Amino acid sequence: MNILDAESDRSNRLLRALMRMPVDMTPVWLMRQAGRYLPEYRALRAQAGSFMNLCQTPELACEVTIQPIRRYPLDAAILFSDILTVPDAMGLGLSFVEGEGPRFAQPVRDRHDIARLRAPDPFASLRYVLDTVGRVRRELAGLCPLIGFSGSPWTLATYMVEGQASDDFRRVKGLLFSDPAALSDLLSVLVDAVTAYLNAQIEAGAQAVMIFDTWGGSLAAHHFLRYSRDPMAAVVAGLNRSRDGVTVPVVVFTKGGGSWLPALAETGCDALGIDWMTSLAAARAATAGRVALQGNLDPMALYAPPARLKAEVEAVLADFGEGSGHVFNLGHGVRPDVDPAQVGVCIDAVHAVSRRPLR
Amino acid sequence: MNILDAESDRSNRLLRALMRMPVDMTPVWLMRQAGRYLPEYRALRAQAGSFMNLCQTPELACEVTIQPIRRYPLDAAILFSDILTVPDAMGLGLSFVEGEGPRFAQPVRDRHDIARLRAPDPFASLRYVLDTVGRVRRELAGLCPLIGFSGSPWTLATYMVEGQASDDFRRVKGLLFSDPAALSDLLSVLVDAVTAYLNAQIEAGAQAVMIFDTWGGSLAAHHFLRYSRDPMAAVVAGLNRSRDGVTVPVVVFTKGGGSWLPALAETGCDALGIDWMTSLAAARAATAGRVALQGNLDPMALYAPPARLKAEVEAVLADFGEGSGHVFNLGHGVRPDVDPAQVGVCIDAVHAVSRRPLR
Repeated sequence: MNILDAESDRSNRLLRALMRMPVDMTPVWLMRQAGRYLPEYRALRAQAGSFMNLCQTPELACEVTIQPIRRYPLDAAILFSDILTVPDAMGLGLSFVEGEGPRFAQPVRDRHDIARLRAPDPFASLRYVLDTVGRVRRELAGLCPLIGFSGSPWTLATYMVEGQASDDFRRVKGLLFSDPAALSDLLSVLVDAVTAYLNAQIEAGAQAVMIFDTWGGSLAAHHFLRYSRDPMAAVVAGLNRSRDGVTVPVVVFTKGGGSWLPALAETGCDALGIDWMTSLAAARAATAGRVALQGNLDPMALYAPPARLKAEVEAVLADFGEGSGHVFNLGHGVRPDVDPAQVGVCIDAVHAVSRRPLR
Repeated sequence: MNILDAESDRSNRLLRALMRMPVDMTPVWLMRQAGRYLPEYRALRAQAGSFMNLCQTPELACEVTIQPIRRYPLDAAILFSDILTVPDAMGLGLSFVEGEGPRFAQPVRDRHDIARLRAPDPFASLRYVLDTVGRVRRELAGLCPLIGFSGSPWTLATYMVEGQASDDFRRVKGLLFSDPAALSDLLSVLVDAVTAYLNAQIEAGAQAVMIFDTWGGSLAAHHFLRYSRDPMAAVVAGLNRSRDGVTVPVVVFTKGGGSWLPALAETGCDALGIDWMTSLAAARAATAGRVALQGNLDPMALYAPPARLKAEVEAVLADFGEGSGHVFNLGHGVRPDVDPAQVGVCIDAVHAVSRRPLR
């Protein structure tokens, strides 16, 4: 029996919804569901010493991935990792400074730096991620699917050129304006790197993959198409989208991309992540049912009184409306100081409100 | 002769374009055109002692407003002031901490704080703004029009509740979720305050007014309509939109509002500000020519090599395309360390590229 045959099983709901097939209730997972708001995560994080050690030790990364699945009736696990593992594997030297976020020891500043870059072989330098994927699949034993992920080429490029988080993207936009050919070369290497990385995750067992375009929303519309959307489309075109005869759906999420959804659907992905500023009804109309939609509760609603949180969950479900093709999620990640009980209220409300009789 | 009769005059271009009337070339002004990137501003700022003193001394605020008009062939002056003068006049005690931005000594946290608030009489507590408006009009002597402005009710509410700038709007969204009636009461007072303030600016001589909804883009779509769009529509409905028989156009600008443009056009405004992430062609299609559009060069393009900056200006003009109803601007303010020569390159390029023969 194809694992996607049943409509009513926690193991199938996410993948069916991403392929716009009917489900018994709306599947739900939350960005950063494995993370600091969970006391069991904080305990393991303390034990690991550093965040990078947590990511790079398959036993620990697997445990962190599974922690929220034990606690909540989530419909998917998402690989615990960081979007910057790929540039780290390219030799940029990733570290995390407490309270300051990621930092590269060797940022990429000009065409000479870019000319030296090579797409890493994920089976060599990112072996730890693939080992984590395999281990998680074995631990989950079919309970729910595992989602793999990568940063988008543009988003990786922003960190690689800036060297750290930025609020104005001055260096990477400086490169865009002063040497667009060099930026295109950088993105081209990153298309190869991200494609190989996601294909390796699929080979290792990831049942769906998501491309996080965290900073696509910083670009002017015409630059977005060229420097963020087109590279993502090239990645999607290069993915092995089925494994053992089962489709591996691809989700593309550009935060702040609400006015570019038709252009994003043209990447060839199966689903689009939707931030909380974009109405799901409007997103559905703009994409004319060509893709599934994943989102989009405001992460701040997790601080609301429980009755109000439930009402906000209902509003998201009602905004999407009837029919197939919705995966519930936040519009961005769970914040570190959210009460874990509130996450439970949210997940339970999604299932309770969306439960529908099987035909 | 009505001052709007001629198509070819620096005194008319902006107002005609905001009313979608033909012009000889696309008018241009830049958000934060009066500000820190100008050495003459920095000299006056040092002389004033504090930023608040600069805002509150009409002689100085007038001089700062006019500085960029002397330097560049801009098609409009914009009042030099701060969006937080209204809450300051409501008794919240505004100050600016160097490098940290605005801060209120008495933030508004709950329904009890809100119940004590009254819309200020602009002719009393905001007299200094109106005196500046009158003084600028006399100094400009018809050379170009003066734009007045205010923060939107929602944007003012965010600062009043947070007490300072915020990146997650946790307190004001906390109020939205836990006591929406109190938030509505706050917005209701702010609608009255902003309406009276803009009408007073119009009475004092402002020839167009702009509502800056800097933080509307932080809201979920359904909350945006209720807590930001609707209050702005109430303000627009209460404005005196002509003075001495000449229309006073109203511009509404929600940063990050690119997917809500049809809803924003329903405020009844004459023009919409457009951020750089939104294509002007898409904005024009979405609003079906019902409003003029103001924007939308990426502010980071002012760091580009001059030839590339010109190409980016051309791309913005081409994106809008033929026909009336475009005011060139940035998608956000001029940054403090921009080279003033680059601002000149930008303004000259707008005029040179868009110059068209008079019919």
